[in-house]
Amino acid sequence: MNYSSIAVLGAGSWGTALALVLQGKGHRVNLWMRDIKQYEEMLEKRENCRYLPNVHIPEELYLSTDLEKAILDVDVILMSVPTQSVRSVFMKIAPIVKPHQIIVNTSKGLEQNTLLRISEVIDEILPGQPFVTLSGPSHAEEVCKEMPTTVAVASKSRSHAEYIQDLFITPSFRVYTNPDLVGVELGGALKNVIAFGAGITDGLGFGDNAKAALMTRGIREIARLGKAMGGNLATFAGLSGIGDLIVTCTSMHSRNRRAGILVGQGKTLEETLKEIGMVVEGITTTKAAFQLAKEYNIEMPITEEIYNILYEGTNAKDAVTNLMTRNRTHEMEEVVETENLNW
Amino acid sequence: MNYSSIAVLGAGSWGTALALVLQGKGHRVNLWMRDIKQYEEMLEKRENCRYLPNVHIPEELYLSTDLEKAILDVDVILMSVPTQSVRSVFMKIAPIVKPHQIIVNTSKGLEQNTLLRISEVIDEILPGQPFVTLSGPSHAEEVCKEMPTTVAVASKSRSHAEYIQDLFITPSFRVYTNPDLVGVELGGALKNVIAFGAGITDGLGFGDNAKAALMTRGIREIARLGKAMGGNLATFAGLSGIGDLIVTCTSMHSRNRRAGILVGQGKTLEETLKEIGMVVEGITTTKAAFQLAKEYNIEMPITEEIYNILYEGTNAKDAVTNLMTRNRTHEMEEVVETENLNW
Repeated sequence: MNYSSIAVLGAGSWGTALALVLQGKGHRVNLWMRDIKQYEEMLEKRENCRYLPNVHIPEELYLSTDLEKAILDVDVILMSVPTQSVRSVFMKIAPIVKPHQIIVNTSKGLEQNTLLRISEVIDEILPGQPFVTLSGPSHAEEVCKEMPTTVAVASKSRSHAEYIQDLFITPSFRVYTNPDLVGVELGGALKNVIAFGAGITDGLGFGDNAKAALMTRGIREIARLGKAMGGNLATFAGLSGIGDLIVTCTSMHSRNRRAGILVGQGKTLEETLKEIGMVVEGITTTKAAFQLAKEYNIEMPITEEIYNILYEGTNAKDAVTNLMTRNRTHEMEEVVETENLNW
Repeated sequence: MNYSSIAVLGAGSWGTALALVLQGKGHRVNLWMRDIKQYEEMLEKRENCRYLPNVHIPEELYLSTDLEKAILDVDVILMSVPTQSVRSVFMKIAPIVKPHQIIVNTSKGLEQNTLLRISEVIDEILPGQPFVTLSGPSHAEEVCKEMPTTVAVASKSRSHAEYIQDLFITPSFRVYTNPDLVGVELGGALKNVIAFGAGITDGLGFGDNAKAALMTRGIREIARLGKAMGGNLATFAGLSGIGDLIVTCTSMHSRNRRAGILVGQGKTLEETLKEIGMVVEGITTTKAAFQLAKEYNIEMPITEEIYNILYEGTNAKDAVTNLMTRNRTHEMEEVVETENLNW
């Protein structure tokens, strides 16, 4: 076994959990965070009290607030900062990043305004820098308890993907490689729209049938958009697509779902954001998905209705009625069309 | 709107719920059941106390125990009897079934020993008889409360599928047609293996990550088998595949899941069957899926481990370890292979 050295940027629950997985395998890990108070508390208590309570952080895991020092001489820079902060954090380190250092991103979302995927953001700043994305159904808390977890790592480069697979893989943390970087990034980002929608059906008092329908048809329309943008349909049926959506839709930890419940109960967008008190990725991503659907001319009825609820004042119940009473159709329009089935 | 007449064979929860949907649309519906006691109770109380309590059955819905009379002159014969009884029930009516009567099947499973799909069983008895299958994420109780529900109807004949779509569709019961009869039938049957497996992970005390992984990777291996048997990969990512699996895996109503929980807790197959006290479709289907995987030479690691737990005495925890420590692999082996990706 070869040991590597890794800088983990961002000490939220997921960054901390991944740092622990890597440190547990014997790698040299620096966990960087911006917040000095958080750093001092973690250093003293060896615990990430705010984001990952009740999990011990061994002395062997280095903590740091010095960004430049943290990435010095490491093999891998793992970015676990909020999507909208990726550009500014990466801009800071770009001048000293070495060409062989592999950037691994774990945040899920599209950059607002530009609608870029994270790999595109990184590539704008340092073209050709090795890049891998890591995504899948993974509550950080369960990873720390060594409960079985699977994720996908995607990259344009097979060897980089396999390097990251080897870096992480343990008997309780199984890593699959996936050649479809576009699909994995889009699935992780856009699934939050559907998770938010699933919350709305809960808020409306609907049942399991409605939620399963929304998830199944929702990931299908996301896959249609994803295919138009260069992804592979099969990716959206995989760990970073439906797999991640299943975990998000069944968890009360999900802010997206909790926000959806409030909207389904009749709260306005403003009231909902105030009550949640944090960024709700699914709400900003709904706007992005709506814009992309227009741009690529893809029919996305579920996304459109969620957009209408959020930004056009449509009543949530009416939106569901709109969806349920659309023209009757095939389940597999795209298959019937593309395969030119004689049916 | 044209009204049709339909015989519903079998007054379990699903047969009764579908009869109510059809009767509610103004169709003429005969609900046939074998059990005279159940018939007399339903006639008196206008309620299916055992299988669908607290739902009123209107006078306009005809009840019957006379199989021949029930199907006389109807347009559609909807079969909602247990999979293993389909052949014997259909054998009884075959001599008087008219060539234009459409057979709709709603049970999910493969015939034991022959491993035939239900459409194949019907076709053996009356070759060429119009046939449609109806499947999807649908708790009967929610359908009766008019909570939004979606299902797929599949047939070799597009016009027969669309006829059944029109027959059922309401603002709360949305019906999609699907050209892939093989895929819809196989997805509905084989997903019970994975639902049973999801129960095992619950019984072992694992979390959401493990269950989402099992569902995602499970439906993937079922899709691989389904494709080899003539189905379309996309069907397994649809309502009758992952959609139905999601509903089954999150419901405590599911016998498959409940049985899995017992096995995960360490009970033997014998003890489990005794405690459930009814047929557990997922257990018989595991054997069928295992046999089909061998026959079609498809790698199905999850199915194989569940088979080993049930029939070879493998400890459930060891089975999970086997799955988590297999050779590292791509997430999309079949895509990388079939598309000959340069990756």
